[in-house]
Amino acid sequence: MAPPVRIALDAMGGDFGPAATIAGAALALQRRPDTFFLLFGDGTAISAELAAFPALAERSEVRHSAVSIRMDEKPSVALRQGRRVSSMWMAIEAVKKGEADAAVSAGNTGALMAMAKICLRTLPGIDRPALAALWPTQRGQSVVLDLGASVGADARHLVDLAIMGSAMARIILHVERPTVGLLNVGTEEIKGVEEVKAASKLLKDARLPNLDYQGFVEGDSIGQGVVDVVVTEGFAGNIALKTAEGTATQIKNLLRDAMRRSLLTKLGALLARGAFEEMRAKLDTRNVNGGVFLGLNGVVIKSHGGMDAIGFARAVEIGYEMVRNELLAKIRDTATIAHEHDNAASLEETSDSSALSSPPSAGI
Amino acid sequence: MAPPVRIALDAMGGDFGPAATIAGAALALQRRPDTFFLLFGDGTAISAELAAFPALAERSEVRHSAVSIRMDEKPSVALRQGRRVSSMWMAIEAVKKGEADAAVSAGNTGALMAMAKICLRTLPGIDRPALAALWPTQRGQSVVLDLGASVGADARHLVDLAIMGSAMARIILHVERPTVGLLNVGTEEIKGVEEVKAASKLLKDARLPNLDYQGFVEGDSIGQGVVDVVVTEGFAGNIALKTAEGTATQIKNLLRDAMRRSLLTKLGALLARGAFEEMRAKLDTRNVNGGVFLGLNGVVIKSHGGMDAIGFARAVEIGYEMVRNELLAKIRDTATIAHEHDNAASLEETSDSSALSSPPSAGI
Repeated sequence: MAPPVRIALDAMGGDFGPAATIAGAALALQRRPDTFFLLFGDGTAISAELAAFPALAERSEVRHSAVSIRMDEKPSVALRQGRRVSSMWMAIEAVKKGEADAAVSAGNTGALMAMAKICLRTLPGIDRPALAALWPTQRGQSVVLDLGASVGADARHLVDLAIMGSAMARIILHVERPTVGLLNVGTEEIKGVEEVKAASKLLKDARLPNLDYQGFVEGDSIGQGVVDVVVTEGFAGNIALKTAEGTATQIKNLLRDAMRRSLLTKLGALLARGAFEEMRAKLDTRNVNGGVFLGLNGVVIKSHGGMDAIGFARAVEIGYEMVRNELLAKIRDTATIAHEHDNAASLEETSDSSALSSPPSAGI
Repeated sequence: MAPPVRIALDAMGGDFGPAATIAGAALALQRRPDTFFLLFGDGTAISAELAAFPALAERSEVRHSAVSIRMDEKPSVALRQGRRVSSMWMAIEAVKKGEADAAVSAGNTGALMAMAKICLRTLPGIDRPALAALWPTQRGQSVVLDLGASVGADARHLVDLAIMGSAMARIILHVERPTVGLLNVGTEEIKGVEEVKAASKLLKDARLPNLDYQGFVEGDSIGQGVVDVVVTEGFAGNIALKTAEGTATQIKNLLRDAMRRSLLTKLGALLARGAFEEMRAKLDTRNVNGGVFLGLNGVVIKSHGGMDAIGFARAVEIGYEMVRNELLAKIRDTATIAHEHDNAASLEETSDSSALSSPPSAGI
């Protein structure tokens, strides 16, 4: 039997702290009994919550930390005050030390990103980490990245994003060769998206074994579920995510208000309650909770700060899946192939250009 | 009495050609009787449609053109084949020649943008044009730009976008000093958004009379209607728009399917029909049809290609409003103030740096 998956939990993160994280861990444990937890945070608060979940108490170990990172703390301040001593840092560090396989936090995104980067460093061959999440679509779910781990991307980083996103999609969507699209604007021949065009060429030429590159997609393709993995740099990705969330909220509010308008519409809403519940379930963001920081020497999962126990449990399970299905090895394998291809291509280029007989001194 | 607003219509653009554009013009004329139309396109096809609208026939002049730009034509090909001779070009050129006050087309966006730029050129002090549109929000409508006229933006261009978007908002939203927000990602202190930060500082310092700069907004603020004008560069703006459209479609489909699930839900939907109709009306994209190309020496309006007569009429009316309320003068006035401020600031900077006594020769 495989050894248990060891999750390091920042119990203090999120809007509800241990009340949501401990109950969430207990829920996740019910569904994945081969999990073991290291619970980082205020020992007294954690133990108080644990009392209600004896099964979790059995399968966990509390590690006291006196410092919690505030949700609205600036990353630089969080690092200064929380390095080594905060529950967030300690959870990540447990992964680095090999005491845990994945860290899960519902805390401050910027601080988590900064600490994860500094503590774990990026995988060989990956320059920058990325944040990926599941996006509910008309066909099911897609992986979308980068959602704001960094801003701007050259062609090479976009290729890395495609590789990392596909590795995640293979695990979560259970497809051996996920389809991948590069987010682009529809208007052809406009200037300034050279990186996206160059990345498209690289992905086409590389014919990677573990992803099926399909070309450009536009913003409306995300919700249609046209591809399994949507790749874009972090600024546009973050704005796409937030805009979609905003639009969904807007329409839900519009619908709710319209349904309250008259006795007749209220009666209609009552009769169609089943339909609204079905819809609510499909749009329930708890089902897709759990952003994955990709490209680090370790698995780090970011839960939405406002999540309750049900949502937080989902983030824990995402961490479990990433470990059980060897996310890091999957990224490493494909990245190695891609970069061998890169190097081969640039070697070819070099010999080509020397064939054009430019004098050696001009090459500098 | 003010002279009529003269609209140059590319009658051949859009998925339905003259069937939608001529009927749309007739509708717009009903609501704005002081409009006169120049109708560019296939003379026979236009006259056939005009027969049904005698009032429009009275207030228009047909200008035959043998060439129509295909909806999927690449802009470079469209320019090669359609320059001077296509209905699209001729409509824009009528504005340049002073025969019309605004051009309206439902044709190929890329071609329209390219032709408008080449034919009309940008306003003094404006480097690049932008595409702005109305975005339905929880509070009403906001102006969002740039939706993809160009990609990437330095701080100065973002300031120009704020100025141009505010001028449009003053006309459409009837507010003297529209609130303006710069679209940004939430994560603080991440690198790569220097332009956005610099633009924020410029806008704060300039204290422009005709816009009320409110700072950064995130993607979900657009739908909330937090500000009257949302400013971003064209890549992110285009992706935000398409993603929002995709999300709205996705939720509408989800709702429709859920409502068809059982007899009970169907009955509920029937009773609540009024609510669904209200919702549909609020989400009807025909009400916000009509993107405005801003920053050119002339008013050019882009209607969505799939619009029917009702939607196209709205685009014509947007063109009417822009002319009647002197869009170009409004942009010019605020841009002048902003650039005077710029120059003053850079003069100050210069004298500051010379006070730091760097030798004159080092300044080159």
